Amino acid sequence: MFDSVRLPHKLGKSEFAEVSERLRERLLEAQFEFVERKQKSLILLINGSDGAGKGEVLNRLYEWLDDHSLETLSYGAPTDEERARPLEWRYWRDMPAKGRIGLMLGGWHHRLLHHRARGKISRDAFETGLDEINRSEEMLRAEGVVVVKLWLHVEDSVAQKRLAKLREDGGRLRRAIVVEWDDIKGARSREKLARSALDLIEKTSTGYAPWAVIAAEDPRYRDAAVAELLLAALERANAESAAAAPAPTPAPTPAPTPEQPGEGPLLPRASLVGSLDLSLTADRDGYGGALESLQDRLSELTTSRKFAHRGLVLVFEGNDAAGKGGAILRVRAGLDPRRFRVHGTAAPTDEELARPYLWRFWRHLPRLGHTAVFDRSWYGRVLVERVEGFCSRDDWMRAYSEINDFERQQTRARILVIKFWLAISQEEQLARFSDRAARPAKRYKITEEDWRNRGKWAQYEEAANEMIDRTNARRASWTLVESNDKKYSRLKVLRTIVDRLEEEL
Amino acid sequence: MFDSVRLPHKLGKSEFAEVSERLRERLLEAQFEFVERKQKSLILLINGSDGAGKGEVLNRLYEWLDDHSLETLSYGAPTDEERARPLEWRYWRDMPAKGRIGLMLGGWHHRLLHHRARGKISRDAFETGLDEINRSEEMLRAEGVVVVKLWLHVEDSVAQKRLAKLREDGGRLRRAIVVEWDDIKGARSREKLARSALDLIEKTSTGYAPWAVIAAEDPRYRDAAVAELLLAALERANAESAAAAPAPTPAPTPAPTPEQPGEGPLLPRASLVGSLDLSLTADRDGYGGALESLQDRLSELTTSRKFAHRGLVLVFEGNDAAGKGGAILRVRAGLDPRRFRVHGTAAPTDEELARPYLWRFWRHLPRLGHTAVFDRSWYGRVLVERVEGFCSRDDWMRAYSEINDFERQQTRARILVIKFWLAISQEEQLARFSDRAARPAKRYKITEEDWRNRGKWAQYEEAANEMIDRTNARRASWTLVESNDKKYSRLKVLRTIVDRLEEEL
Repeated sequence: MFDSVRLPHKLGKSEFAEVSERLRERLLEAQFEFVERKQKSLILLINGSDGAGKGEVLNRLYEWLDDHSLETLSYGAPTDEERARPLEWRYWRDMPAKGRIGLMLGGWHHRLLHHRARGKISRDAFETGLDEINRSEEMLRAEGVVVVKLWLHVEDSVAQKRLAKLREDGGRLRRAIVVEWDDIKGARSREKLARSALDLIEKTSTGYAPWAVIAAEDPRYRDAAVAELLLAALERANAESAAAAPAPTPAPTPAPTPEQPGEGPLLPRASLVGSLDLSLTADRDGYGGALESLQDRLSELTTSRKFAHRGLVLVFEGNDAAGKGGAILRVRAGLDPRRFRVHGTAAPTDEELARPYLWRFWRHLPRLGHTAVFDRSWYGRVLVERVEGFCSRDDWMRAYSEINDFERQQTRARILVIKFWLAISQEEQLARFSDRAARPAKRYKITEEDWRNRGKWAQYEEAANEMIDRTNARRASWTLVESNDKKYSRLKVLRTIVDRLEEEL
Repeated sequence: MFDSVRLPHKLGKSEFAEVSERLRERLLEAQFEFVERKQKSLILLINGSDGAGKGEVLNRLYEWLDDHSLETLSYGAPTDEERARPLEWRYWRDMPAKGRIGLMLGGWHHRLLHHRARGKISRDAFETGLDEINRSEEMLRAEGVVVVKLWLHVEDSVAQKRLAKLREDGGRLRRAIVVEWDDIKGARSREKLARSALDLIEKTSTGYAPWAVIAAEDPRYRDAAVAELLLAALERANAESAAAAPAPTPAPTPAPTPEQPGEGPLLPRASLVGSLDLSLTADRDGYGGALESLQDRLSELTTSRKFAHRGLVLVFEGNDAAGKGGAILRVRAGLDPRRFRVHGTAAPTDEELARPYLWRFWRHLPRLGHTAVFDRSWYGRVLVERVEGFCSRDDWMRAYSEINDFERQQTRARILVIKFWLAISQEEQLARFSDRAARPAKRYKITEEDWRNRGKWAQYEEAANEMIDRTNARRASWTLVESNDKKYSRLKVLRTIVDRLEEEL
């Protein structure tokens, strides 16, 4: 989950000056409208590891927003007053009124996460707690409270350096907000905390209140990213309020909230997909032999006695013309055709349209001992349907957690889920499209639509990045495949499958 | 929870003939519209103890509905096919298409409930499973699948007699659906199952898919009640589909779905409140002494060392002029004024309107060692706001589970929650209103609104009954107080508080 946060995220000084000026202007505008409308309130939960800069973010927001409708909601160890009441009372007491924004430190996830990281509660108790949080946030949403959840991420080594520096300057340490995870000491405990945090982020990223994980190593980037997120939330809330306001004359049904209100993103997006080294190539001479030996190994593994009690699901997504078909062909060569099926994902049939979205994939799940390959898959909802506006924002936002549930149901039933994103560069795609268009035998492979999609490269890339970030669960993770070189791509796909099978069987 | 189901529910033969004729007509009409619109599908989950008549209900529905768009979804022990796939696959495989109705036996709650009743899984694991079910049902709802959940209830003794009779007739037994809880034998195991079922019903009664518990002792009543429920669900679904259909010309915003689409309820409502014996009176001579000794005991208990670590919340709801104020006065006399507050629940202030609904009650929760009395309370949402249409159906439907969560948060924090419903008859209310109107000193107590509310007696009673049914959790249960006689009412209130305190401290 959220591997994109490990990518370099930096803003140069002048870049920051430019971006922040525009951000501040739009933020203030959106905030004034928010105050004016008085329809909703907003709580921004600022979470993250110690040393990630939670306090600095808070100060920055006070600098950039109008502080008249801003309040800080900060929670440490419970006071006497709080101990004498239900746990949840402290948050209710501070509930911001409509038109106001609360910046929350140490929010309602904190205690649960802390207990879990220290091994004080079981996994089941942890999950029950997370579900209670989800219910509360759903209620808040229904009551007009917008909940925006932020996790600031820095690598542990960076955080430790920062904290050491702070400790040298006692005064600054006291002013900084680093006491949250006070009793979590040593690299292993911190590692445990990080893992529990990932779990929490996965389970409480709902359609109504998703988490945003933000790279916090570069303070300039961090602050701009937080501001941009807050801006989007405010603009969306304002649009919703506008749509809900009673119109004087019968108005047409309001359009679904646009994905990006306002003028679109100001910050460069961190791109997992864009950060791949697409120049990787396979060794030409060794290719045939390597391929064959991997196919042999795959065949052995999938006919083994152990595999009879397992299933295999292979998901292929990627840019148009990235070579999904070719890769699947090479996988197929290593598998028993009686226990192997490829499912192309074309437009849904009438039958499928008449049922919930995931139905058309459920019907093709393999039984144990079998393999199903999905050439495009359930991820269509958060890729093409999102970008082309075939479903509403609410629909694709809730799809992330529905997909995570769906894949968890598979892995729990001993199905191994392996997902590939085949990536090529824009130039390589152009070359392949042109080649297809020029060769009669391949012309069927290229359509008007492919050219149209190409025009939305940036939006598809953003959707792909968010998809990978939000559905990269530990037991059903993504493998990104550099595919400008077809041979390299095919070998990597096969090797990944073989390695995962060996690991699991 | 759902105590109303224990009330006598019967329909005479001729009454049934009349009701069922109208029901069948409207059912068919609603079903045809449902098929025609092809916007939604519906799954009716038919659950209940063995011997409650699940199979008979199924047969009846086939008789009353058009079976062209009907299908039975029945699940026993998993087949080979099913065992080779994720658990959830069997339900997905059978997913009814839009316009179709699935009647489901042994649905997705079954396995979990069974495991819990047999002690095979922990409470936390049970709750985690229930939350997964909630997430799935929420997804189904968002995807246009209406989920209607039915629990048919008969007292254990009745069920056992029926089953014995079936066993005598082996052929009928095989045709009946009684094998569900096959290996749950003996009164104690069945008792455990019943308790787990209540738990399940409480935790999975969501705004989007609430449970209906139906008294199934009288087959005529049972079948009519099921049909009425299904009718309401179909009519609501049709109304939603109509509202969502793209209008050819800009149409005004559709009105919120009315609580009772169509012509209103056909069946007499079972009424917990209406079944009280309001002729109960207190012994005139003993009253003063009894009152005083209860107050003394209350004083002792609430000043005890143990009470310092507990809190007390008293909720008073009831008919207008039922004597809430008088009862509260008598409770007050037994309490230390420094650790006791009464909160009247008037129209919400601006401050309160600007925040989520429950906020105005959270702010008044007592700290440990203290007592808070709520003269009317958070139940306003499912009483007055429901009846007067101040909030949408979705809002008050989700309020039940929100309130259950809220009260669980209190009891978990060692607050004792005691809830009273003070009931008087319509005639007694009229007498008290007239008395108030006639006496200048009491005239302020009676307003235009009181007279208006009186006109909606039946609707308020239905709302009260459903409220008691859905929020009668084990640790925060309702006490119904027969209040035509004020003295009887006050003594019962005080005695209940004293008894509960003695039990808990």
